[in-house]
Parts: sequence; C-alpha cells; structure tokens
Amino acid sequence: MHILITAGGTAEKIDNVRTIINQATGRLGKEIAAAFSSAPDCRITYIHGPQADLPEKHSNISFFPVGSVQELLHEMTRQLASQPFDAVIHSMAVSDYQMDFAIDGDAFANKLAEELVRRPQDISETELAEDIRQLLRTHAFVPEKQAKKLSSDSRQLILFLGRAPKVISIIKTVQPETILVGFKLLVDVSEDVLTDAALKSIKTNNADFILANDLTKITGETHQAFLIDSGANKRYFSTKQEIAAGIRQAVISKLEERSE
Amino acid sequence: MHILITAGGTAEKIDNVRTIINQATGRLGKEIAAAFSSAPDCRITYIHGPQADLPEKHSNISFFPVGSVQELLHEMTRQLASQPFDAVIHSMAVSDYQMDFAIDGDAFANKLAEELVRRPQDISETELAEDIRQLLRTHAFVPEKQAKKLSSDSRQLILFLGRAPKVISIIKTVQPETILVGFKLLVDVSEDVLTDAALKSIKTNNADFILANDLTKITGETHQAFLIDSGANKRYFSTKQEIAAGIRQAVISKLEERSE
Repeated sequence: MHILITAGGTAEKIDNVRTIINQATGRLGKEIAAAFSSAPDCRITYIHGPQADLPEKHSNISFFPVGSVQELLHEMTRQLASQPFDAVIHSMAVSDYQMDFAIDGDAFANKLAEELVRRPQDISETELAEDIRQLLRTHAFVPEKQAKKLSSDSRQLILFLGRAPKVISIIKTVQPETILVGFKLLVDVSEDVLTDAALKSIKTNNADFILANDLTKITGETHQAFLIDSGANKRYFSTKQEIAAGIRQAVISKLEERSE
Repeated sequence: MHILITAGGTAEKIDNVRTIINQATGRLGKEIAAAFSSAPDCRITYIHGPQADLPEKHSNISFFPVGSVQELLHEMTRQLASQPFDAVIHSMAVSDYQMDFAIDGDAFANKLAEELVRRPQDISETELAEDIRQLLRTHAFVPEKQAKKLSSDSRQLILFLGRAPKVISIIKTVQPETILVGFKLLVDVSEDVLTDAALKSIKTNNADFILANDLTKITGETHQAFLIDSGANKRYFSTKQEIAAGIRQAVISKLEERSE
C-alpha cells in the first residue's frame, strides 16, 4: 500500500521577512502517518509545510517539504505523475489566496486618483465600481519592482491577494482510481453548515471522504470531527488518534471492497 | 544580573486560521540566553514569539510567550514596570504593521465607487488622491463585523495594515538606566546602508548597541553581523555563537564601566 499524506500549513511570502501562514500544527497528519505506518507493507509519501510537527523518521516514510501553494501544487503534481497511490489524505491547511502585490497606502491613493480623475464626469456608481474592479484586477497599481523587504515606514500597507490554485481538485483528475480524503475546517458553524460544505467539497473535488471539523471544537487533547462520504454517512471522532484510526479504517475498507 | 531577552518573531492574526508572521527561528535569542546563563548569578526573563526555538528550561530563565505586537508591548511594559533590568536584548523580529481590516476586492470597489461618485465633477487629481487617502485612513470600508474566518471564495482579498507600535522605543523611556541592545535586519544592502540604519535606530530608540545584520548573509551556520555603538565603533561576527558572546561581552563591559 502506498499513501500520500499532506500535513501542516502552507506559507505565502509577502517579502523576504514577512509571510502569511495557514495555522496548522501538523499533529493530525503525524497521527495519520502513525496509523498507516502500522499497516503491513505501507509506504508513505509525506508532503508537509514549514514548522509542521513531523512523524518520526522511518524507512517507510519519505518527506517532501513545501512552502507556498504553488510549491505544494508542483510537488503534488510531480508525485501523482511518478507513481500510483492507493490513497491521498490531504490534511494540509492550504491557503485560499496567494500574494499578488503590496503597496503603500498613499501610493495606492495617488495611483487610483490618477486613473479615476480621467473618467467621464457623468459616470454612474455602477460603472465607476466596475472600473475600479477592473483596475484592481489588472494590477494597474503594481509597483514596477517589488522591494525585497517592504518599507517599514508606511503609515498604511495594502496587500492584494488573488485566488490560489485549488490543489485538491487536481488529485482525482490525475489519479481517478486513488481514494481521496479531503479536509474541511470551518470556524464556529452549525453541524448542518459543516455537513453542506463537506458534501460540496466531495462533489467538487470528486473526493471519497471529507474529514469535517470546526476550529472551536479543537482544544488541547479534544479534536471533534466527523468523516463523511458522498452518501452523507458519518463517523464521529473526539481525538486526533480516533480521527487517524477512522481514516485508516475507511481507506482500508474501501480498498478491500474494490479488491473483492 | 537580570537580563530581559526577546526572541523569535511576532504573529499578527488576519482571522482565526490565517496569520502574518515575521520569520525568525529564535535560534539567535537561544544562543544569547546560553551566553548569559553561564554568567554568575544571571537571571533571564525571556519573552518569545510562537514557534521560536527555545533555550532549555532552567531555574534561572522565566518564559513569557507572546503573539502579536500588542501582546509583546503589553508583556514588555509589564516586565519593565515590575523590576529593573541590567540589560534588555531585543532580538525579536517585530512586525512594523498590524492588521486593520480585510475586505473582498469587489466589495471594496463597490464601497469606493459609492463614496467617490458623489465627489464634485471638477475635482483635481491631487484633491481626489487626498480624498481617497482619507477614506482609506478612516476605514470607511470596514465591514460592520469581521468574519471569524474570511471567505474562501473571493476572487481578490485586500488586507489593510496600519503601523504597529514601536516596542523598542518604550524601553529606555521606562528604564533609562538599562543597557539596550537593539537589532536591525535589512535585506541585500551595502554595509553603509546597514550602518546608517543602525545608527539611526541607536539615536531614535536611545539604544546602547545595535546588532546589524543582512538576511542574505545568514545561511546555515554562517550569520554575519556587526555590533555598533553610538560612536560607530563596530565589532564583527560570523556565527550566532560569536554574536551571542559579543553581546554578552559588550553588556558586561558596560556594566563594569558604570560600577567603576
């Protein structure tokens, strides 16, 4: 059995000293690796973010560190192209956004005024909003050269972030036969909202299971979560160990079903 | 002898899952603590950021974890008010900015259009720029309630950051007698530029020494840096161990001078 696990969080650089991170200790990925390690003949490919708490080094685990979503996408694509995986367990907290550019607040105001002052005088609010949207999207404000370290002296700093690629969506596209376990983390929502988000992710990404959890229900040793499949069948867990064991069991059952 | 050391980097939350960090391993602070630990009767108060590599626990070191610049400011003020320190070695990578608010790109364009469409038709570019600056500064775009987790579905996300307080500047204000060692990290600049920045920091913050370094000269075991005083006297170092020993020596010499 060969399993690909992603763990920890991605990190999008703003400049050489500042970074936007998606908070994740990596401990859940570590537990999942431990659960699969005990399966006979299991090899694990482990893609992880910076500062993730890692599983112990072992001959059956290969580690691949990544930083940004782009780096994750690159490593994931490379791994999926190089060998078939029985399952991909994508527990990494992946940024939805990546840095487009950073600009000083005053410089932004000047640039925007320069663009907008030429607009026709009878422009409607809707047209003006559309013009501003276009300006923002076409990066009309990008400084010619981004500094290696942003100025420390701006009164206001504005960061523009664009959508990062959805790494999860490529997994089944490249390996339709793999068992895909995705993760959905929301903050302080009802179980219904979490369930809907998980089912939507199953559909969008062609996932076999989603591990759904709520940040407000992860404290100390407690980690409440449920594993849901496309039929909305749920299994509930209260600790990282239970989650890891539950995912392992779900994956192995599915592999056994297929081989029957 | 009682020393206050700050180490690691600050972390400014964007929402409950995303954070802007100032990258710092904390290893230099750890070396500095080790260098002072060996001095007789030295007690260390150690303020550190999340995920900083920490000195070993020891009865002469007290640890105080902080996250944001505001938390650092609070802890620093509390410590300085509670007891006199012989020296403060402020090696922490402190964010220059803190989060003001985050807004979806389209929502920002709509709000800006709503404000600007009412402007007089013969407004000059300079006046328009000033109006936009005012709008940005007064936070006219702040959503009424910031979500606990920002939407993952925006095409563009805009983060507005304002200036964070300069924690270093309060140290000598509260304890004029303490020996203050500040740090200046720039990226890929000449020694002259770094020297000027360090001397400026000495003046602005009434520091006794600045440890000046360049990110491009910190790789693996190498950590090139110089310690400079108000007379522009410099001592050069090539490793974290040398830096730590050099700072210890400079602080102890200065304390001895004073007691003579």
